[in-house]
Amino acid sequence: MTAVDFHGVFPYLVSPVDGSGEIRAEVLARLCEDLIRAGVHGLTPLGSTGEFAYLSWTQRRRIVEIVIHTAAGRVPVVAGVASTTIADAVAQAREFERLGCNGILAILESYFPVSDDGVFAYFRAVAEAVSVPVVLYTNPNFQRSDLSLPVIDRLSRIPNIGYLKDASANTGRLLSIINRVGDRMKVFSASAHIPACVMLIGGVGWMAGPACLVPRQSVELYNLCRAGSWAAAMDLQRRLWALNQAFAKHNLAACIKGGLELQGYAVGAPLPPQAPLSPDGIEEVRRALAAVGAL
Amino acid sequence: MTAVDFHGVFPYLVSPVDGSGEIRAEVLARLCEDLIRAGVHGLTPLGSTGEFAYLSWTQRRRIVEIVIHTAAGRVPVVAGVASTTIADAVAQAREFERLGCNGILAILESYFPVSDDGVFAYFRAVAEAVSVPVVLYTNPNFQRSDLSLPVIDRLSRIPNIGYLKDASANTGRLLSIINRVGDRMKVFSASAHIPACVMLIGGVGWMAGPACLVPRQSVELYNLCRAGSWAAAMDLQRRLWALNQAFAKHNLAACIKGGLELQGYAVGAPLPPQAPLSPDGIEEVRRALAAVGAL
Amino acid sequence: MTAVDFHGVFPYLVSPVDGSGEIRAEVLARLCEDLIRAGVHGLTPLGSTGEFAYLSWTQRRRIVEIVIHTAAGRVPVVAGVASTTIADAVAQAREFERLGCNGILAILESYFPVSDDGVFAYFRAVAEAVSVPVVLYTNPNFQRSDLSLPVIDRLSRIPNIGYLKDASANTGRLLSIINRVGDRMKVFSASAHIPACVMLIGGVGWMAGPACLVPRQSVELYNLCRAGSWAAAMDLQRRLWALNQAFAKHNLAACIKGGLELQGYAVGAPLPPQAPLSPDGIEEVRRALAAVGAL
Amino acid sequence: MTAVDFHGVFPYLVSPVDGSGEIRAEVLARLCEDLIRAGVHGLTPLGSTGEFAYLSWTQRRRIVEIVIHTAAGRVPVVAGVASTTIADAVAQAREFERLGCNGILAILESYFPVSDDGVFAYFRAVAEAVSVPVVLYTNPNFQRSDLSLPVIDRLSRIPNIGYLKDASANTGRLLSIINRVGDRMKVFSASAHIPACVMLIGGVGWMAGPACLVPRQSVELYNLCRAGSWAAAMDLQRRLWALNQAFAKHNLAACIKGGLELQGYAVGAPLPPQAPLSPDGIEEVRRALAAVGAL
Repeated sequence: MTAVDFHGVFPYLVSPVDGSGEIRAEVLARLCEDLIRAGVHGLTPLGSTGEFAYLSWTQRRRIVEIVIHTAAGRVPVVAGVASTTIADAVAQAREFERLGCNGILAILESYFPVSDDGVFAYFRAVAEAVSVPVVLYTNPNFQRSDLSLPVIDRLSRIPNIGYLKDASANTGRLLSIINRVGDRMKVFSASAHIPACVMLIGGVGWMAGPACLVPRQSVELYNLCRAGSWAAAMDLQRRLWALNQAFAKHNLAACIKGGLELQGYAVGAPLPPQAPLSPDGIEEVRRALAAVGAL
Repeated sequence: MTAVDFHGVFPYLVSPVDGSGEIRAEVLARLCEDLIRAGVHGLTPLGSTGEFAYLSWTQRRRIVEIVIHTAAGRVPVVAGVASTTIADAVAQAREFERLGCNGILAILESYFPVSDDGVFAYFRAVAEAVSVPVVLYTNPNFQRSDLSLPVIDRLSRIPNIGYLKDASANTGRLLSIINRVGDRMKVFSASAHIPACVMLIGGVGWMAGPACLVPRQSVELYNLCRAGSWAAAMDLQRRLWALNQAFAKHNLAACIKGGLELQGYAVGAPLPPQAPLSPDGIEEVRRALAAVGAL
Repeated sequence: MTAVDFHGVFPYLVSPVDGSGEIRAEVLARLCEDLIRAGVHGLTPLGSTGEFAYLSWTQRRRIVEIVIHTAAGRVPVVAGVASTTIADAVAQAREFERLGCNGILAILESYFPVSDDGVFAYFRAVAEAVSVPVVLYTNPNFQRSDLSLPVIDRLSRIPNIGYLKDASANTGRLLSIINRVGDRMKVFSASAHIPACVMLIGGVGWMAGPACLVPRQSVELYNLCRAGSWAAAMDLQRRLWALNQAFAKHNLAACIKGGLELQGYAVGAPLPPQAPLSPDGIEEVRRALAAVGAL
Repeated sequence: MTAVDFHGVFPYLVSPVDGSGEIRAEVLARLCEDLIRAGVHGLTPLGSTGEFAYLSWTQRRRIVEIVIHTAAGRVPVVAGVASTTIADAVAQAREFERLGCNGILAILESYFPVSDDGVFAYFRAVAEAVSVPVVLYTNPNFQRSDLSLPVIDRLSRIPNIGYLKDASANTGRLLSIINRVGDRMKVFSASAHIPACVMLIGGVGWMAGPACLVPRQSVELYNLCRAGSWAAAMDLQRRLWALNQAFAKHNLAACIKGGLELQGYAVGAPLPPQAPLSPDGIEEVRRALAAVGAL
């Protein structure tokens, strides 16, 4: 994997943790193996779906280790780095690079509001700490700070910040970003956007939890978009979107974990006090998966 | 205009008012005439851009009269009805139908929050008051109530509620609506969405203020989308989006009025205490218009 | 009433409207009469509780006429002026002064955001249009614009802007305002604040819907606060607050109208699509009123 | 300290960290010593002002150790426990009790929304993990979950959950809580409320960052309130509030740290990417401190 060019479908992996806090290595490895065989273009441990905010550093490190080991260079692994402080984020990023990951998904957590200069300093520090490419992640729904257009522009000029994943649900904002950063940065969709729309406006793929559950269908959708077969793409997209709608009603991690359990992966429940998927939610996810042939 | 099928580009008309509160009839008529000649598919007086919230009933009525008279049946006129009470909205709608408009854009204003049943009752009453088709309008940015999916579903079953215009900026929500209402309702984009994306997912056009300023380019974009020429559509869309970005920074009515003044229409400023477009804003709009050949 | 000094309890009057849109003059007059006999210090028609946002100009004018006629100079009448435009607000204020009201409660409605300069211009214009004192009203929950501290400071320097009523629920903000405007402006509480606290920090009374239902208890609370009998004041306040809690769960106008119906005033329901108080809400209000001896 | 009864002024301590991440033990100890001598009633390490969200477990543990050692039983130490997971919060609370703290300030961090049942389970688990009293902390401005009244009611029935500190700025909400929980729980103010108001309605004191800077004045205010000398209390409160206003404009930790530096404590800056207090902010804090004789 010398020439790095992230694109396509990157499932946001769940983090299977048992009751004593141990990572269920075999379950995670089997999921990664199956996703790779289904044709996904990369793997992303420790995104939102991966419950990064609920895991200790030991747990996070172990998860990245397992994913890198399983991927074995077949697809790039882009690991989530998330912290409130620059010092901690830099330490995380360095260790993940040392473990062999191919990219960093950089997430800024905060408690007090952070100024644009602070946001810039954080992401620049993460990028300068590693030599692999960095994907900026912004999720205004759950994070207390957002990446403004001027900050994104400034960050796009740092050599190894080459990608952005936006989870704002405001697709127009993505086009504004694309118009602004030009070739300096490529854009990934999140599950809050319609992937086909993001592909139409110039996106290069999506990083999202639901792709864990429908990897083959996601890859097919990606291929249809890349081929410019928009009518066929939308036909598939419309059916896949029903799955997203089911997820939007519930805790994302609970949904993906609940769906994977239905598919036979013993990934368990999200970490308490998060609630597992309710019986109604399970039924909804079951129907949504069956409708796209994923069960 | 016996067979009604709203689709395509419907400019949200501005409302030119002089210092004494009189509608500048000639300016408005000339704008309508030019838009029709530019190929727009319909005209929408009294949308957000039309400052409906700042006009008296006398002013609103006069504007609709002028637009209907100028359109003279060449394109459909869909007039905005907006009120906090059912009784007033029904009276407005009936009068606009009597004046000869071809559709009603129904807007619910509120001060206190309104329950889903209240929202449903309002729009149903407007629809039942007229025989022309009704377009539901929802704008969560400026209106205090929003149309939930269940309410939209219920409303889509009322015979003459055939369209919805959503200004939420959440394009995924539009696909959720389309998936839910099927053939019962058609969806128009607003300037908060990327029109090409809305066309891709099944929309039938857009109702938006910027189309006043770039009618020919808007119609061209619509035709490219309809023809499935997505690459060409996106090329044009990207350039038109820069115009939207300029507008998003400023008061919408001030922007469109400011741009029209640059194009030679003496539409004046928005009603005080709204501010006219600032010198910086004028310069930004001038550049954005010039960049797409609209100046 | 030559020397004007607004202070004490000003009930926010409801607006009784019958099914055909007529104001129920006798009901409103009887309510005003009873409130004055209960010792309230003034009357405020067309506040939030008065559903100003749901009434036509004809209805608003009629309500103010009835209240002024009933008050007959015994207590000051401070009438609500609310509009999106300066021109309309000025016209309303002039007419209310002509009808004989003793003060104006000035409310800025908006659809698009308004800049601080626009906010200032609006309230200054209303003040300059009349010779009676003006009370600024700010309610960030329902209004789309808020009065910033710098704007309040600027407005406090206009001679006849002498009062402010804040409905923000942030009591600290009131002390910030008091600290900032000094003697230039006096502050009234709203039902979102604890009146005893506002009196403690230097307020001069409250303008609020619940005082329609518990006028004697409200006046007693005011007198205890004025006398510095804080322990007794808090004992009463605690019991009255339970009433506020009941109201906070429901539409404010529906609650006050529902409570007045229980007390024998045929004020009717709020204007559709607002919902009347639910059976559960009626029961809650009934218990809350009974608990303070108001039923 | 056998009989525990938390009341009075509990400064929210800052966390002095040097450039290499070490806790500045002498600075922190001297601050604690001076605060105790100034008469404060307790010490609270790891509140919001203490930047808990920016510290590693090792740093948090060290800070609590230093504070307990310095307090040496003279005043109670209530240490902040904050986590996204129950397991981690329980481990933190147990360790702090083992170190000798006299109470736990329990904070729920979250990324995804948490249901009322999840909120309840979290705080109950923390309470059951220790034998010392627990103070619930809710700060809707910075935390992603809030404590609803029903949840507070349920939690108030757990024996060692005896206190609540609310930082909502909505003082009426505090009275609603007091009315609801009766004697089962006592309420502390935060710097977002006016302490004198919270004392008036039945609060027992305040836990707040500014008390680090004005401990003597805070204790004096507390004593005046307890004595029922409300006029004198308000006179002092008004002047102290000006300090709060200065703080409300800036990052809270930056403000308190900046003020302490002015007073000669080398507490340093907040952890990056948080910004240190700006020169303007320093000047504002200097003036505010000087005005109340704290510099």
